[in-house]
Amino acid sequence: MPEAIDLAAVLASIEQPWQPRTVAVLNDYDVRVVRTHGEFTRHSHPETDEVFLVLSGSLTIRLDDGEVDLGPGQLYVVPKGTPHQPYSAEGAEVLLVEPSATVNTGDTPSALTAERRAV
Amino acid sequence: MPEAIDLAAVLASIEQPWQPRTVAVLNDYDVRVVRTHGEFTRHSHPETDEVFLVLSGSLTIRLDDGEVDLGPGQLYVVPKGTPHQPYSAEGAEVLLVEPSATVNTGDTPSALTAERRAV
Repeated sequence: MPEAIDLAAVLASIEQPWQPRTVAVLNDYDVRVVRTHGEFTRHSHPETDEVFLVLSGSLTIRLDDGEVDLGPGQLYVVPKGTPHQPYSAEGAEVLLVEPSATVNTGDTPSALTAERRAV
Repeated sequence: MPEAIDLAAVLASIEQPWQPRTVAVLNDYDVRVVRTHGEFTRHSHPETDEVFLVLSGSLTIRLDDGEVDLGPGQLYVVPKGTPHQPYSAEGAEVLLVEPSATVNTGDTPSALTAERRAV
C-alpha cells in the first residue's frame, strides 16, 4: 500500500540541528527536512539553486545583498552560486529541495558537512 | 533586496481550485501551490515523478493499488507513469514540485488542464 510521509514524524527523529534527512526522491532531486539552530557554514552551491521552505520557527538566510527572514509557510530559492549563510536564533524546521547529489555545505566543507541520509 | 515568498498570500490570490500557481523556480523545476476541491482528472506523467505536500486541509490521491490520504505536513511522491486521481472532499492547499514543463493533467487533457502560470 502506498503511504504518506509525515514530515513532523521524521523531524522528531532527527537528533542534531543542521543534519538533513532525505524524506523523498523526485527524479534526481531530494526532498529533505532539517532542524536548524544557530549559525550554519557560509557556502554556495556552484551547480544548483536550492529551495528553503520554513515549516515552523524562523530562519534567516544571510546573503551578500541582504537578509531573507522566513517564517512558517515562507519560501526562498537561493540562486546557483550565491553565497548564503543560514542562521536560526530560535530554531526552525525547514524543508529543502535540491538535486540528490547536493552536499549541505556546498563548496565549503566544515564540521557541519553531513553525508546524505535517507529515512 | 531578496524577499521571501509567502505561500498563504499566493494561495489567497487563486480564485479557482485545481489551477496551480508557480511560486518559485529551482533550476528547471517549479514549486507550485494549488487549492484542491472535489475530483481532479485521473492522469499520469509519463516523464516525471510528482511531489504533493499538503499545507492545509486534506487530499486523497487515488492510485491503482490503493489510496493515499494526506493531511497537513504530509507528503507523497507519485512515481513517473503512475495513474493517479487527486480528490479532496473538504478542500486542501497543496504544494507541488515537478519539472517546469509538467502539465497539471499530464497525459489526459481535460477541462481542468491549466496553462503554466507564475506569480
